[in-house]
Amino acid sequence: MPQGKPDTVPDDGLTTRERRRQPVLAVHTGQGKGKSTAAFGMALRAWSAGWPIVVYQFVKSPKWKVGEEAALRALGRTGEGGAVTWHKMGEGWSWIQRPGTERDHAAEAAEGWAQVKRDLAAEAYRFYVLDEFTYPMKWGWVDVADVVAALRDRPGSQHVVVTGREAHPDLVAAADLVTDMTKVKHPMDAGRKGQQGIEW
Amino acid sequence: MPQGKPDTVPDDGLTTRERRRQPVLAVHTGQGKGKSTAAFGMALRAWSAGWPIVVYQFVKSPKWKVGEEAALRALGRTGEGGAVTWHKMGEGWSWIQRPGTERDHAAEAAEGWAQVKRDLAAEAYRFYVLDEFTYPMKWGWVDVADVVAALRDRPGSQHVVVTGREAHPDLVAAADLVTDMTKVKHPMDAGRKGQQGIEW
Repeated sequence: MPQGKPDTVPDDGLTTRERRRQPVLAVHTGQGKGKSTAAFGMALRAWSAGWPIVVYQFVKSPKWKVGEEAALRALGRTGEGGAVTWHKMGEGWSWIQRPGTERDHAAEAAEGWAQVKRDLAAEAYRFYVLDEFTYPMKWGWVDVADVVAALRDRPGSQHVVVTGREAHPDLVAAADLVTDMTKVKHPMDAGRKGQQGIEW
Repeated sequence: MPQGKPDTVPDDGLTTRERRRQPVLAVHTGQGKGKSTAAFGMALRAWSAGWPIVVYQFVKSPKWKVGEEAALRALGRTGEGGAVTWHKMGEGWSWIQRPGTERDHAAEAAEGWAQVKRDLAAEAYRFYVLDEFTYPMKWGWVDVADVVAALRDRPGSQHVVVTGREAHPDLVAAADLVTDMTKVKHPMDAGRKGQQGIEW
């Protein structure tokens, strides 16, 4: 229920309408649930707006996010909204046709980021989810200054959401919208493991 | 990247498999973005699992959540996953066929909650989003003890997500999973208003 009242009006010569159309760089970080989930929820709006969407999953997972992937791909197939593209690291990025081989994760993350940069330069999509991209940044697999510069200086009207814990301070500084998902209570605290249909 | 290691194992006589199938009561609260958005993201997984989904929007909004509604309804229509039902307060709940009339919001919230109770008792759905339901609870439009008891004692395997700021402590106490979406930075701080395709 935010009432949409800005605290200040910037002296940028833009009209409100122009400001509304400015692209957003968002970061979902913190120890709690909902970082990726909220990014995929934002993709629903982007789909509805007819925007081409791309998801880059930057961390190999035994469970991936199969439910979200199936749902967003199904939405893309309806043809009623934006097209949906989904790339996964760790099983081989989809633009490199050699899936399933065991590979070096650092090199693969760098390849993924290089493709994101090409996509941004080409304005290939309107809405990007760089899922768990904070980890390659943290682990030194990509250059933080290069990432921040490419995201900050991206052309056109491309919205980007980066998810993952411990977002780099330079990324936070460059972002327009930063939310920390803070864990208050989790079923695992009470000895419950991941819930089918909820966690995967 | 949670590793799925519970801190303790409960002495409840259940197997891990049984615990994984226990239904979850989740609360997304806090001042930041992503409370509803993450709930709709969770609905993607529920849809993919083939679960019937229902959304109750408990606060009338000039913008509603048209993108999310359009996307989830489109998913429901694919027939590939779970069915999707969407109810809105303020334009007349969809089970009451008299939309568009100006009505008393407190009475309408109480009607909405009465329907949620009937749905839970009938096990009508597997995944519920009670969107912005913290406000009717806060404003005294529904009885907090009644809400907590009905949610806590719901039969079968029904997952419920409640969203909104300032969740009542009794709701937090009853929930399995509570995340506080904490605002770190928002475009409005820099004088930018809501972003088309991002905020609505």
